[in-house]
Order: sequence, then C-alpha cells, then structure tokens
Amino acid sequence: MLNIGLLGLGTVGQGVVEIISKRKKELEELLNKKIRIKKILVKNMDKKRNIILPEDILTDNFNDIIEDDEIQLIIEATSSLGEGYRYVKEGLERGKHVVTANKAIVSRYFEELTALALENRVAFLYEASVAGGIPILKPLKEHIPLNRINEIQGILNGTCNYILTKMFEDDLDYDEALKIAQDLGYAESDPVADVEGYDTLRKLRILSSLGLQRKILEDDILLEGIDNIKSFDIEQIKKLNSVIKLIGEAKHYEDGYVAIVLPTIVAKDTYFSTINGAFNSISFKGDNVGELKFYGPGAGKLPTANAILTDVLDIGLNTYRNKNLLGKKRLKNYNYSMKGRFYLRIPKMDWKVERGLEEITEEILGQNKYIGIKTKEIELERIYGIIRTLNIKKKEYFLGRFL
Amino acid sequence: MLNIGLLGLGTVGQGVVEIISKRKKELEELLNKKIRIKKILVKNMDKKRNIILPEDILTDNFNDIIEDDEIQLIIEATSSLGEGYRYVKEGLERGKHVVTANKAIVSRYFEELTALALENRVAFLYEASVAGGIPILKPLKEHIPLNRINEIQGILNGTCNYILTKMFEDDLDYDEALKIAQDLGYAESDPVADVEGYDTLRKLRILSSLGLQRKILEDDILLEGIDNIKSFDIEQIKKLNSVIKLIGEAKHYEDGYVAIVLPTIVAKDTYFSTINGAFNSISFKGDNVGELKFYGPGAGKLPTANAILTDVLDIGLNTYRNKNLLGKKRLKNYNYSMKGRFYLRIPKMDWKVERGLEEITEEILGQNKYIGIKTKEIELERIYGIIRTLNIKKKEYFLGRFL
Repeated sequence: MLNIGLLGLGTVGQGVVEIISKRKKELEELLNKKIRIKKILVKNMDKKRNIILPEDILTDNFNDIIEDDEIQLIIEATSSLGEGYRYVKEGLERGKHVVTANKAIVSRYFEELTALALENRVAFLYEASVAGGIPILKPLKEHIPLNRINEIQGILNGTCNYILTKMFEDDLDYDEALKIAQDLGYAESDPVADVEGYDTLRKLRILSSLGLQRKILEDDILLEGIDNIKSFDIEQIKKLNSVIKLIGEAKHYEDGYVAIVLPTIVAKDTYFSTINGAFNSISFKGDNVGELKFYGPGAGKLPTANAILTDVLDIGLNTYRNKNLLGKKRLKNYNYSMKGRFYLRIPKMDWKVERGLEEITEEILGQNKYIGIKTKEIELERIYGIIRTLNIKKKEYFLGRFL
Repeated sequence: MLNIGLLGLGTVGQGVVEIISKRKKELEELLNKKIRIKKILVKNMDKKRNIILPEDILTDNFNDIIEDDEIQLIIEATSSLGEGYRYVKEGLERGKHVVTANKAIVSRYFEELTALALENRVAFLYEASVAGGIPILKPLKEHIPLNRINEIQGILNGTCNYILTKMFEDDLDYDEALKIAQDLGYAESDPVADVEGYDTLRKLRILSSLGLQRKILEDDILLEGIDNIKSFDIEQIKKLNSVIKLIGEAKHYEDGYVAIVLPTIVAKDTYFSTINGAFNSISFKGDNVGELKFYGPGAGKLPTANAILTDVLDIGLNTYRNKNLLGKKRLKNYNYSMKGRFYLRIPKMDWKVERGLEEITEEILGQNKYIGIKTKEIELERIYGIIRTLNIKKKEYFLGRFL
C-alpha cells in the first residue's frame, strides 16, 4: 500500500484526488500495490466542497499526517510559501518522500531541500512546479549527465502569455486583457507575481540551476515584466510582423552566464510565436542532443495534478534519480553586459533628451506622446544607463528584446 | 562495472563511443560504477576508421559478445533488419538488456521482443528508434498510466521534412531537393523508405501501439508518401498561405481508431509549419494532461547516440519500466472512413472525367496540364474511389490532407 498525505485541497489538490480516483486500476497495476490518499490537510474542515471524499480523510492538523508512520509520501499543494516550506522540510526530515507543485518553495529553498532529501534518503520531486503539465524537469535531469546544457529558454507563465496573445489578436488594452484573464481564472485577483514576472523568474531559477549546473539564485536574474505594456507597443511590434512573449532565458556567456526574464520580440513565423494563450514552452540546448523543445499546458487542475502524479509514480516505482543534481559553483553574472537588439518605449520628451537616445537607436518605430525605438546591437546596461540619465520611472518605460 | 557490447560502428555506433568517452566522468559518477564498451561487432575488421579504439575491442563474431557473461547490455546499432533482429532476440534470450535505435526491428517485432524481455526480466528499450534525439517514448510511457491518450501526431522523418522545407523555401523541384538532401547526408542513396513514407509508418506503428494501447501493425496504417509531389502542388498550397508536412497520425475514432501517414497541409502561422529542415516533432493528447508537443533533431550521430545512452542510463540505474505496456486488443480500423478536407492533384483530363471530381470539389486551386483541388469535407475512401474510377496510377496523383 502506498499511503499519501495530501496538503491542500484547492484546485490542484482536487485534481490529484480526481486522477487517482479515475485511474486507480491502472496505477495499482503499474505499482503492483494499492494506492490511497490517507489524509488531506485543509484549513477549514467545514467548507463545502464539490468533491466526494471518504469519511475522516480531512484534517486541519498537520501532525495527523507527519506523525502517521503509514504515510510514506506527502504531496504539498498548499500554494503557501511559509507554511508549505515548513511542511516540506518537516516531511523530508521525518523520512517521508515529498512531491510539490509549489515553485516559490522550490525556488527559494532549492539547495537546502535537495540536500535534506539526499541526507534522509527520500525523494524531493517538483515536476509540477515548472510549466504545469509539461514533462520538462525530468527530461532535463536525464540529459544533464550526457550533455553540457548551454542554453535554456521558455515561455513559463500562462497568465502573461494569455494577456499578450489577447492584446495581439484582439487589439485589447492591457487592462482589458488582464480583466478577461482574471474572469477566466488564468490570472489571480492580485496578478503581481505573474505580470511583473516573478513567477517566470522562479521557474527560470529552477531550470537554470539544474540545466547550467550552477548556483543561480532569484537575485541573480534580471527581470522586466509585462505590466507596463501599452497598445502603443503592440502597434510598433505588429509593424515588424512580430509578437511579444515573456521569455526567461539562461545561458553560458563568456566565462560566466546570463539569466534574464524579458519581454521578447519574436517574428511571426518562428516557433515561440505559435505558443499562444495559457500554454507554455521550454527549449534547451545540449552539446550532444542539440535543441529540444517542449510544449503544453502551463497550469490548470488536471495538467498540474498529472505532473504531480508522474512524480508519485516515480517514487512508488523507485525510478526517480536521487543524486544531488545541483551545481555548487558560482559563476560570473553577465546580465548587464549581454549584447542584443532591444525595443525601448519611453514618454516623448524634448529634442535635447531624445538626443541621448540617438546613439543607440537603429530605427524609430513610432512616436506620438510616446517614442518607441529599436536599438542597434548594444549591451543591455546602456539601456538602463539612458533610463537613469533621463530619470524615467519604472512605470514609464517598456523594455523588450529582439530574439 | 557496466560492460556494454556494441553492435555496429556506423554513424550512430561511433556517436555512442564518442559520448561515452567524453562524458565518462559524469556517467560513472551517476551510475556509481565504471562503464565501458567491452566489444564492438563490425563486419570488416580491417576497415580504416576515424576513431581511436582500445586494442582488441573489435570483433566480427557475435559469439564474442553473446557468450561473454561480463557483458550485461547490448546496444544494437546495425541498421540491418534480419541480422539485427537475430542479435536482439538472442541477446534478450540470454538475459542481456538490449537497447536499439533500429525502428524497423521494433516496428516489425514489437510485441514479440517486448514479451521476450519481460519473460527474461531484462530491459528492451528503443528511445532512439523514434524521432532521434527527442525524448518521446519515455514521456509517452510515463503518461499512459495516468491518461487515456486520444491522439498522436508527428513529423517523424527528417529527410522528408528537409525536402519539403527546401521545396517551399527555395522553390526547388522534388528531384533537386532530394539531391541536396542526399549530398548533405540527410537522405540515403536509396531514399524509398523515407520518401515513400515507410520510415514514418514504422515510427507511427511504435507510437500508436504504445499510445493507443492497441495492437496497431504496419499493415493497419494507410500510407501516402511525398515522392509524387510536384512544383505544381507547392504553388497551389503556397496560395493558401500554407505548407506541406508529412505527418503520421493515430487517434481513437468512433469505436475504433484511425492510423494514417499522409502529406498534410498546415497553415503558415501554426505550430507544425515552424518545424523545418531535418527536425522532427511529435504531439500527443491525454485526457488529463492535455496536449503535449516535443521538438528536436530527428536523426544524426550525436542526438541518436544521446537517446541510446538515456536508455543505457535507465538500465544502469534500474529506473526503466519493465511492465508490458503494449495493448493486445484489436480495434476496428476506420482509416478509409475518416472525414476531412483533402488536396488532390491529378493529370488534367477531358471534361467528362472532371465531372466525376465535381461533387467532391470545394475549390479548384489551379489547373494547367494538372488539376489541383481542395475537396469538401468527405470520407477519405471517396478520393480513392475517384482515383480507381479514373484509372489514375500511383505515380500520377498527389494526395494530401488539410489539418
């Protein structure tokens, strides 16, 4: 019998219950043993829920799970950073396998929790924490021993991608597109973590630490979100027969690395431009395998629960890799000296100010009360230099990069 | 010590030697034991080879490998169907794990070899046999217990995709594009298996048997290749702002299934149109995970060797799944009654004959000495009915389908 303790019965938790219930026969045949969720931790025992559950399965006391020696595996699906971390840590310390979908926890405590699992000879798996239903972390881990991974790129946040798709396809304003995303449940009522790019940043932190085999922390990643985007920007980019995607990218660069999350301009007939709506895509390049790309649903009840359960099966079958895969070395960060062509939109100012722009400009794409330019190939820090010099506030500019 | 017997030292075999040599440290760290290729079976011991090998590693006698109890694992990289099959079978019977890149063997003897491996409690793995470097079979197998897989689609042959890409991008004739593919080593001097679609068919046989969990044999798959394509066809499809890809597809259909390999017309801003050159892509849809897509190099020395070595690592770490994953049930085949819109190009005939075309035609796309039409939504068998009625020979028509 594989006894599971489930923490949280929100959307993802319910998805886990649903799939285990409908695929019980297949799962037990594969595992060659029974599988059941023995306890579910919830905040509110009396809340009305649209799901049929065995009697006495709910608890509001974590001790009922952590103290139960029959429970070998904990699925953490709370979406809380503080409590979730405590549960994961305690679970691993007590010798229980832990599976989580919580990217905030993995990103913040990646090294610590990975080491803790190794020490206690249990699994710490988190496939669902990056790109929802897409099997990406396991293939990535499996390619690391065979390849030097040189580059990882991804559209990692379904909310941003949905908003950008809507703005381009239906000529909506940012606020209108955000509102629809919220109505459809793609965006939270407080969308900051998504639209300002923090969610993408966390996923890139996880992907890049694994892929590049270096210690790359949240603070090492340069971040621009999509919350400042205006219809003006969409107009300029459309003229170039291109679209904007929020892309996280990490790569080896000179003797160090670059790790950035930036709105990225991609031509219409290229791969990333076909990733629309709430979908995600990730690519990585290995020196032997070449470039691999993965596409799928970036979130959602069943896709995320499905990813959690691929981890659960790996634990049940003992087919997970329990080596410490994380690199310990720190390398030089070259974010600001990364070269490229960029899109910059700022408020239209007087001619003296604009002259500061002149030397980096390849083409003025459009101007009215804003001015939008495509730069020559320059180092990224020159853009921030100009933003500082012109004293432009965070909310007043939009910065993107041409892929 | 993990002792490997390698069969064949062609392109793929050399890739295996190369990666094991350059990643030895990482592999041995992961496996926690030494890894070495103990013997390599070759046809000609005296052939000059551009690769440095330990003394006495070559043999032209399979017995030196099969009789060597130290060799626990055989990598079959011969590209021969008859001999390869004999080696694989004998290897499994002698209790050796077998990894192969040989799609012809897997396709032809899938059920037999899978059962044989199970019986002898060894692994029979073949990740490299479908879509070269793309990790597809393992993710697919891992999703089967959690999902009903409803549909699998793929661009599975790099040669065809390269030829089609060249014809569309550079306005080349079929013969010119094939010649370039041959010069670059993408196409064999005898390209029949590729351009007539047999290679795609074999890969679809493997994917669909796994994915649909049904016995779907080579003969169950309807096949049209790309060898009849003409510049006339490219012109018509370009007018529709679309391109042609050779796509294999299997899906549940009514109470049975459909399994077809057909030139497929895809609009320019959609996913499959961005898969160019010798690359492959596969998508599958599960009822829980939704649609997943995978992209990467469909062939080549290092990508294929890399895929072989992911299997080898799964054996060395004992993390492969050894359940018999193949469905035994047969289901009704609906290939000919599959509904869709099709492209048909035939020689231009007199008006009486063309009247036969009229009732299925939605639009005549072009005509000179040929006539190319887009059909209404019809059953596929109606096309073959017309081809028979008009007495059009295999070499005289080109048939595609609109996705």
